[in-house]
Amino acid sequence: MHTALGEGAEFDRIRGIWRRIGRVGASLGDDCAVLDLGGSRVAISTDLSVEGTHFERGWLALDELGWRATTAALSDLAAMAAEPRGVLVSLGISAEMPDDWAAEIMQGAADAAAAVGTNIIGGDLVRSDRILIDVAVIGALSGAPVTRDAAQAGDQLFVTGLLGGPAVAVEAWRERREPEATARERFVHPVARIREAQWLRDRGVTAMIDLSDGLYADAGNIAAASDVACVLKVKSLPVHAACAGVEAALFSGEEYELLVAIPPEHAEDIASEFHALFHLPLTRVGDVEVGHGVALKHVAGLELDIRTFQHF
Amino acid sequence: MHTALGEGAEFDRIRGIWRRIGRVGASLGDDCAVLDLGGSRVAISTDLSVEGTHFERGWLALDELGWRATTAALSDLAAMAAEPRGVLVSLGISAEMPDDWAAEIMQGAADAAAAVGTNIIGGDLVRSDRILIDVAVIGALSGAPVTRDAAQAGDQLFVTGLLGGPAVAVEAWRERREPEATARERFVHPVARIREAQWLRDRGVTAMIDLSDGLYADAGNIAAASDVACVLKVKSLPVHAACAGVEAALFSGEEYELLVAIPPEHAEDIASEFHALFHLPLTRVGDVEVGHGVALKHVAGLELDIRTFQHF
Repeated sequence: MHTALGEGAEFDRIRGIWRRIGRVGASLGDDCAVLDLGGSRVAISTDLSVEGTHFERGWLALDELGWRATTAALSDLAAMAAEPRGVLVSLGISAEMPDDWAAEIMQGAADAAAAVGTNIIGGDLVRSDRILIDVAVIGALSGAPVTRDAAQAGDQLFVTGLLGGPAVAVEAWRERREPEATARERFVHPVARIREAQWLRDRGVTAMIDLSDGLYADAGNIAAASDVACVLKVKSLPVHAACAGVEAALFSGEEYELLVAIPPEHAEDIASEFHALFHLPLTRVGDVEVGHGVALKHVAGLELDIRTFQHF
Repeated sequence: MHTALGEGAEFDRIRGIWRRIGRVGASLGDDCAVLDLGGSRVAISTDLSVEGTHFERGWLALDELGWRATTAALSDLAAMAAEPRGVLVSLGISAEMPDDWAAEIMQGAADAAAAVGTNIIGGDLVRSDRILIDVAVIGALSGAPVTRDAAQAGDQLFVTGLLGGPAVAVEAWRERREPEATARERFVHPVARIREAQWLRDRGVTAMIDLSDGLYADAGNIAAASDVACVLKVKSLPVHAACAGVEAALFSGEEYELLVAIPPEHAEDIASEFHALFHLPLTRVGDVEVGHGVALKHVAGLELDIRTFQHF
């Protein structure tokens, strides 16, 4: 489950009810459900994007819309270091939309699936006034899945990639400007960090989450699930070049980068090997400490309005 | 994939494109995709219902909506005689709708899952102007799945339950009447024939499909996939008592009953055992013959407008 553009903490109560109804013998709380199917363990997740809530039609090309929605779901598999095995796409388009729209959206979805070695295996197609796309993904788990609930005080926190690009793009669109090209690309073509996650799992990271709610919120998710405090050093954030300040990097949702907790003894080696292997930064952004919640360091002189960004 | 109320053959071209894009090493064409996960075979399907396309808000209570959407997806598992192992529910409700609506819809979904021995294991929750619910189901396959493509000339065609109720209910709502109670119940509380399907599989039926498009259309799906003709005897149809004629039983979609092809030597025994075991009729409705398409017998004196019902 993700917090979408235009959603926020107001859905938390509903999610609480939902989990109460749903929690009957299977895992909820991490983004994927895990099923034990007699010999195989399977991770499965679904991610729904609706026009007007998660995107506006003019922002993205149709294939970009399919790519983005599919990557959002695949990113849930990355968070558990699962291997994608198939994608189902449920698509709603209206009778007034040209037929080819469905095919273009599907092509983007198929490309996103192919980019991580899987493919579209099914779906549904219905009429809807607004474009909507719901992507279900299924992945195979080998070994124990990495979850968000095992971070230990003393671990160091690292994040993949550069943060803030999607928020900068959305801000531009909302102000009816064309976004800076690299920020736009981060919004329309996020990458599910599947191989990166599997590599990090094999290196013994203690907890992992994909950044769908934003660094600040997802650090909070790790803190709550692991019963620890996450301390983020604001000066250390890997901020996308299109960002004017650190806010977007802290609060921008739908990054689909990974936040990982790594035991301190190997953390530096892992980060430098990761960078050499994936040509992607793995940046230390803070520490796991005894306590609760998320604390920010180095915020003197910054005016951060967390509430504003929760409803971004 | 199903043909929804308000959809029709006009989506066929898009579905063709879709399948071309999707068909990269996995099965499409039956309602479930089948994945081989090193030791376990898994059937997975998704079914999207959108307010205004598949239902109107006043027709159903919220829990009925959740039940119906979940059963529609579970019925895809029944069609392959798969054992349900988990349900994911993606739900869209608007900010103006009371919080409890989501919980009520989810309760209905959870009840439908529990009715076939499974449960809700995950999902997504977003904002949407119109209520929408997309249900993904995952099931375990033991032995070869029953599919729609292996009916043989000489087989007899049987259908479970009584047909036409959902169409009668929808017709009443569209005419702003309250539907007859048992017809309404067929629309709001369809049953996924999970146990029945597994029993029929074990008895050696050759082909099976769940009636989501309607008897006439789904007989056509078996005929096309199996390269045979399906001959339906209109006088023999098990028509729901609320129906004025046979049209609704032939063309009513979203019945979620099973249409099965059974080799003739055991067909009568199977039908009588089935009825005794499940307290549900298993009615012979026709035969599989050499040829193509669907033929109707005993239609003298009936005025059947197939085209009308394709867009029902």
